[in-house]
Amino acid sequence: MSKDTEFRPKARKPRGLRDQFAGDVLARRQALEIIRSVYESYGFEPLETSAFEYADALGKFLPDADRPNEGVFALQDDDEQWLALRYDLTAPLARLAAEHFDALPKPFRRYQFGPVWRNEKPGPGRFREFFQFDVDTVGAATMAADAELCMVLADALEALGIARGDYRVRVNNRKILTGVLETIGADDAHTRLIILRAIDKLDRLGMEGVRLLLGPGREDESGDFTKGANLAPEQIARVTGFLAAGDADRAKVCGALRDLVGASPIGLEGVAELQEIDALLTAGGFGPDQVVFDPSVVRGLDYYTGPVIEAELTFEVHDETGRKVQFGSVAGGGRYDDLVQRFRGVLVPATGVSIGVDRLLAALALLRGAKPAPAPRGPVVVLMLDKTRAADYQAMVMELRRAGIRAELYLGGSGMRAQVKYADKRNAPVAVIAGGDEFAAGEVTLKDLVLGDQLSKDIKDNAAWREDQPAQQAVPRANLVAAVREILAREHHQG
Amino acid sequence: MSKDTEFRPKARKPRGLRDQFAGDVLARRQALEIIRSVYESYGFEPLETSAFEYADALGKFLPDADRPNEGVFALQDDDEQWLALRYDLTAPLARLAAEHFDALPKPFRRYQFGPVWRNEKPGPGRFREFFQFDVDTVGAATMAADAELCMVLADALEALGIARGDYRVRVNNRKILTGVLETIGADDAHTRLIILRAIDKLDRLGMEGVRLLLGPGREDESGDFTKGANLAPEQIARVTGFLAAGDADRAKVCGALRDLVGASPIGLEGVAELQEIDALLTAGGFGPDQVVFDPSVVRGLDYYTGPVIEAELTFEVHDETGRKVQFGSVAGGGRYDDLVQRFRGVLVPATGVSIGVDRLLAALALLRGAKPAPAPRGPVVVLMLDKTRAADYQAMVMELRRAGIRAELYLGGSGMRAQVKYADKRNAPVAVIAGGDEFAAGEVTLKDLVLGDQLSKDIKDNAAWREDQPAQQAVPRANLVAAVREILAREHHQG
Repeated sequence: MSKDTEFRPKARKPRGLRDQFAGDVLARRQALEIIRSVYESYGFEPLETSAFEYADALGKFLPDADRPNEGVFALQDDDEQWLALRYDLTAPLARLAAEHFDALPKPFRRYQFGPVWRNEKPGPGRFREFFQFDVDTVGAATMAADAELCMVLADALEALGIARGDYRVRVNNRKILTGVLETIGADDAHTRLIILRAIDKLDRLGMEGVRLLLGPGREDESGDFTKGANLAPEQIARVTGFLAAGDADRAKVCGALRDLVGASPIGLEGVAELQEIDALLTAGGFGPDQVVFDPSVVRGLDYYTGPVIEAELTFEVHDETGRKVQFGSVAGGGRYDDLVQRFRGVLVPATGVSIGVDRLLAALALLRGAKPAPAPRGPVVVLMLDKTRAADYQAMVMELRRAGIRAELYLGGSGMRAQVKYADKRNAPVAVIAGGDEFAAGEVTLKDLVLGDQLSKDIKDNAAWREDQPAQQAVPRANLVAAVREILAREHHQG
Repeated sequence: MSKDTEFRPKARKPRGLRDQFAGDVLARRQALEIIRSVYESYGFEPLETSAFEYADALGKFLPDADRPNEGVFALQDDDEQWLALRYDLTAPLARLAAEHFDALPKPFRRYQFGPVWRNEKPGPGRFREFFQFDVDTVGAATMAADAELCMVLADALEALGIARGDYRVRVNNRKILTGVLETIGADDAHTRLIILRAIDKLDRLGMEGVRLLLGPGREDESGDFTKGANLAPEQIARVTGFLAAGDADRAKVCGALRDLVGASPIGLEGVAELQEIDALLTAGGFGPDQVVFDPSVVRGLDYYTGPVIEAELTFEVHDETGRKVQFGSVAGGGRYDDLVQRFRGVLVPATGVSIGVDRLLAALALLRGAKPAPAPRGPVVVLMLDKTRAADYQAMVMELRRAGIRAELYLGGSGMRAQVKYADKRNAPVAVIAGGDEFAAGEVTLKDLVLGDQLSKDIKDNAAWREDQPAQQAVPRANLVAAVREILAREHHQG
C-alpha cells in the first residue's frame, strides 16, 4: 500500500500555527473551566458558531482598517460565494443575532470560546490561529450590561488566581472622545480616525509622541515620517488633557470629563453613562482597585459606539530588551450598537468583551514563576516483560482501571530498562513489574517512581542506592490494586 | 458610524454549517467529559493540532478515493503553498508524529477532540463541519494496542449510558481479506479496490447485491449500472463465505477464517493477530456481548493495514421511509502502519479509532426518548422594575452570585409582564421582584417559576390561581439569599 511513496512530503506545520501537547492543553482546559464557571454564574449561556462565515457577513471590521478584507483566510465556495474563517467571535454573533433575532430571548446573553484565524505575519507569541473567550449581551441598551462586563472580567481574573492589584479593568466611553473632538471642531471622520490611531499608540510612544501625531506629525527612529492630525496647540492640549484625566477616583474622573466635553450633547451623554456604570460597580462591590475609568483607553476597532473596556495585568515582566514593563492587555471590548444593524437595518444595542486566552495563559505561567508548569501526572504503567504473558498484564491493567486508577500497558517493543525510562518520561507514579520470578511467586513488584526520583536526587552514592532500592517492593498479585492505591496516597504523591 | 450601510448583507450561514445553542453545547460537553475521562483512564493524553495543515501533508487519504484532493477546504498561502483545513484528526497526527518523532515518548498515546471540515455536499444530518474524538497509539506494533482500542470504545459507550446489547464493537483484519483474495487469485490493486467497495456496501445492498458487484455488475432501481469485479462463481463464493463468517464466538470466527485463507502467509498472519486480540479481550474481561469479530467490516479508507474496528449501535430507529433500521456506526478506525512512513521513510506502526461525535449525540438523544433534551436550568433573574433603583438590583444579583447562585439582572427595556416572560424563556428557577411596595417594606418578592409552571398546568381555573399565587412569597430583603436557596432546594427543582 505504500508503493507510491516516491514523493515524500516534509513533516512541518504552516507558519504561525502550533501543536499543543498535554501540558498546554491541560493548563488551558483548567483556565477555561474557571472562566466558564464565572461567566455562567452571571447567567451567560454557551453558544458555538462554525469556523466559516460568508465574507460579507464578517464585514470590514478587522483591526487594521488600512487593509479591509485582508488579514483573513478566505476561499471561494463551489457556488462562487466567498467564505472566510472567523477572525473574531463578535462578527459571527452579530450575524447570528440578526439571523435568529425573533427566536432569541431578548436580551440574548451568551459566551463562546474558540479559535479565530488571522492571516497576518506571525511572530514570537503571535500566531495565525489563537483562542478567544467572549461574553456578550445583545439587545440591552442599559449601562448595567456594560457595568456587568467590567465585573465579570474582574471576577474571572481573580478566580484565575490573579490578585487584586495585579490587574486593572480600565473603562472609557467613545462618546466622550467624540464630545471632546466636537468641542474643538475636529470631529470629521478622517481627522477622528487619525486622532484615534494616535491615542492608541500612547502606551508605546508616550504623551510626547502622541502630541506630535496630533500636531504636525512624527519621525520615528528609522526616519519614517507619520503624518499628524495638524491640530492647533490649544486643540492638542484639550485632547492630551482628556487622555490624562484618568484617576483612581471614578467620580473625580467623571467630573473632570464633564468639564472637558463642555456643552457637547454626545459628550455629556458619555459622561452620564460612565456615572451610571460607576454607581452599578459600587453597588456590586467593585472598588477602584478593580475597575478604573481611564480616558486613554480607546481600543483599535472602529465599530465601538459607547463604553470601551480593557483588562490589563499590571505586574511587571521583562521585555525582549530586558527592560521591565507591565504585562499589558489580556481582554478588551465594548459597546457596538451598530453591528447587528448592518444586517437588519434596525438598531440592536450590544456589548461584549473578549479574553485573549493565549496571552492570559502566558501571564498565568509567568505568575506561577519562571519555572515551567509541572508536567501532568501520568498513568500507572504496567511493563510488558514477557510477551507470552500479555494477557496477564492486560488483566492487571484492566483491574487498576476498574478500580478508578489511570493505568496503561507498555505497548512498545523495548527491554526493561527502556520501559522504566518510558514510564519516567510519561511521568508515571508507579511501574508494575512482573517477570518470571514474580509470576512463579504469585507476586508483582511495584516501583514507586516519585520516591525513586527523590531518592536518586538525595543520595549521591548511586551504587548504594541501587542495592537498597527502597522505592521498590514485591506484593502478592492479589493485592495489586490495594498496594498501588497505597503508594498513590503517600504524601510525596500529592504534588 | 452607521452611515455607510447602503449594502446590507443577508444574515445567513454558509451551506452545511451550524449554530449550536446552549442545549446542544451542554449535551456535547457532558458527553465529551465522559469520553475523555475514559480515554484518560487508559493513559491517553490530550493533544491539539491546528485547523490547517499543508495540503501535501494531508495527502490523498480522503474516504472518496475517486476524487483525491477534492472534498477539502483548501487555499493558497501568501508564499503560494497550498493549505487545507484538516478533514480528520489522523492525518495531522501522522504529520506531528513524523515532525516530533525523536522528542515523543514511544509509544506515543494521545487523544484529540475537535472539528474537522469536508467540502462535500451537505444533507440532513450531514454537515461540512463536524466533530471527531480520536484516540491513537503511534509506535506500537503489538496487537495489545488494537485490543485496547476495542476496550476503550466499549468502555466509553457504556460510560455514556449505552447498555451492553445496545452496541457492538466489530473487529476484522485487512490482512485476512488480502489472504482470501490471494487464495482466489484476485489480489491485484484494481480488483482489490472494486471488491473493497462492494463489501463496504453490504449493509445497504445485502449479500445478493454484493454478489452482483463481485460478479458481472449491478443495475440499481434507477437503471444505473455499476461495473462488477467479474469474479467467477467459485471466487465469489469464497468472498461471500468470508463475509458471512462472523459469529458471537470469537474463537470460532478465527477457526473459520483460518480455513478460508488457506496457506496465504498474510492471511494466516491476520488470523493470528485476531487470535491475539481475542486473548487480550478475554483477559480484560470483554465478552462477545461487547466485542465481536466480523469479516464484513472493511472500513472505507484505503490506508488501513491490519485490524479494522467499528463501533455500531444496534438498537432500532426509524429511517426516512419509516422502516425500522439499526442506528449504525458511531466510531471506527484501525491500524495504519504506513501513514507516518509517508514522511519519514521508515515504518512507524500506529493504530487508532475515531468517534463521530455528532452521530453519537444524535443516538444518545434517541436513547433518551423522542422528547428533546430538557432545557438547561437558567439563572435566577432579578427583574428591573424601576430603573432608578438599578444599583439596588445590582446589589441583589451580586449577593446571589457571591453565594454561589447563578443569577442575572434583567437588562432589557420591557415592562414587568415581559420580564417574567423573559425569565420563563431563560428557564429561570426564580424571579426576584422588587417594586415600590417592596422597597418601602424592606422586602423582595420571590416567584418560584418551576412551581408556578406546574400549578398553571394543574389548575384549570386560572382566575382562581392568579388570586392565590402560591408560587409567590414576600421575604425580608436581608433574607434574599437564604430564601432563594430554600426554593432551589425544593424537590420540584431537582429535575
